[in-house]
Amino acid sequence: MDVQAYLHERGEWVDAFLDEVLPRPDAVPPSLAQAMRHLVFPGGKRLRPALAFAAAEAVGAPSERALLMAAAVELIHTYSLVHDDLPCMDDDDERRGRPTVHVAYGEAVAVLAGDALQALAFEVLAARGARAGSSERVLGALRDLAEAAGARALVGGQVDDLAVDEMRADAAAIESVHLRKSGALIAVAIVGGARLGGADAATLARLRRFGDCVGVAFQIADDLLDRDTDGACSLVRILGETGARVRAEALLAEALAEVDDLGERAEPLRDLARFAVRRER
Amino acid sequence: MDVQAYLHERGEWVDAFLDEVLPRPDAVPPSLAQAMRHLVFPGGKRLRPALAFAAAEAVGAPSERALLMAAAVELIHTYSLVHDDLPCMDDDDERRGRPTVHVAYGEAVAVLAGDALQALAFEVLAARGARAGSSERVLGALRDLAEAAGARALVGGQVDDLAVDEMRADAAAIESVHLRKSGALIAVAIVGGARLGGADAATLARLRRFGDCVGVAFQIADDLLDRDTDGACSLVRILGETGARVRAEALLAEALAEVDDLGERAEPLRDLARFAVRRER
Repeated sequence: MDVQAYLHERGEWVDAFLDEVLPRPDAVPPSLAQAMRHLVFPGGKRLRPALAFAAAEAVGAPSERALLMAAAVELIHTYSLVHDDLPCMDDDDERRGRPTVHVAYGEAVAVLAGDALQALAFEVLAARGARAGSSERVLGALRDLAEAAGARALVGGQVDDLAVDEMRADAAAIESVHLRKSGALIAVAIVGGARLGGADAATLARLRRFGDCVGVAFQIADDLLDRDTDGACSLVRILGETGARVRAEALLAEALAEVDDLGERAEPLRDLARFAVRRER
Repeated sequence: MDVQAYLHERGEWVDAFLDEVLPRPDAVPPSLAQAMRHLVFPGGKRLRPALAFAAAEAVGAPSERALLMAAAVELIHTYSLVHDDLPCMDDDDERRGRPTVHVAYGEAVAVLAGDALQALAFEVLAARGARAGSSERVLGALRDLAEAAGARALVGGQVDDLAVDEMRADAAAIESVHLRKSGALIAVAIVGGARLGGADAATLARLRRFGDCVGVAFQIADDLLDRDTDGACSLVRILGETGARVRAEALLAEALAEVDDLGERAEPLRDLARFAVRRER
């Protein structure tokens, strides 16, 4: 499979939908509408949406069935970046070559834009999901997403990440941060996409383990691409470059073993996992 | 009805449930667990939960049917207070006689605790709702809550509230802020409680108008209790004390007319509305 073409095409699907659901400047305070869109367009690789689409395909459903999850996960991912960049957190002025949201719109609007993006993620799932099909499935996907976004996963991971210097973290502690801060949203994109695609409980459990492994390995790949690991929550700092690469490959192999019996139709999902771990940017 | 007794009893119900669903310090980073609980316990009047319970009663359901909505609305309300208090917003050091969350736990953890409280509100509804009954109803209540928490309501109201000086706001602009920043969560407590209680669409529409009026009047009551209205988003500043009181009473009358035909069983809801508008603290 041509991973870049898959990312590009599925990225266009989710972009069109996000443009439709994000509020326009005549519906909300204009600075809020602009701040909410600032980091969504242009976005990143749209890897999480692509994983959601591929997970629906992997369980035999049409790719499009995962659209709500693809969009909702991207909204949560974006909100978390807006808040991570704030002066009281990582204090970043630039992201993807542009000013961060608080630099462009002020700190208060950045906090509030993040808050509104989180609410929108759940609104999209609940409002469109009621129309789209089984309420049970949608409610299940929504619960998965709320858990992944909450204190036990995304937010708790960020709290520990901020304290990682004080923690004198070992490899296990760093992987625990990766699992919660990065892994959980990647895993829920996959599990939620498969859930909307009608997967059974046993398949969902395997995809969850697949997603957790891919999520941690994805973050190790990020650490490998980031030259500046001083004091950072990075496995490269503990294991060295080769050790980190070996660990990422082991996690990828563990992930792929989980989805071995899903056959040919899971090939896009496997290819995206290989890409996530081995990418060069 | 004895409003204080009703608030006290229903407050104990929702407190016990919130204590159950809020993460403990062994499940998440301890500072995060403590920061999430800081403003929940002790809480305020628990007016929004009481309105949710009373709305379920008003449509002929057992009060308890509204528990998930009562808790979820209180979690959203609490998260919004944590973020409103931040240095980049209202910069408040104290609330209810105690240090605000960012004073007690630092700004980063305060932002993150608010984020996690928002996610928890949706998690509670989705996770417990799937078990509790009709998924359609729960999904509808969840959509209502996400809308009320989002850019078109709560968050948009806060953005305009922060800019209210620059806006040289007139009475209509101030009521628009009140409707979104305070009214929406009060209305959704009522509509969501009634929805979980099985109300039909026509009743929900009347309760929505009831809730919007009560929500704005509640905020005017707040303005009347707050002596310091200089530059604030306050109707008292525009209409004077008597004018604001007259407006609040007119909104209350408009609200009560909407629920006239709900009969005896809506009396707790009406009493809570009267209390919300005429309270002396």
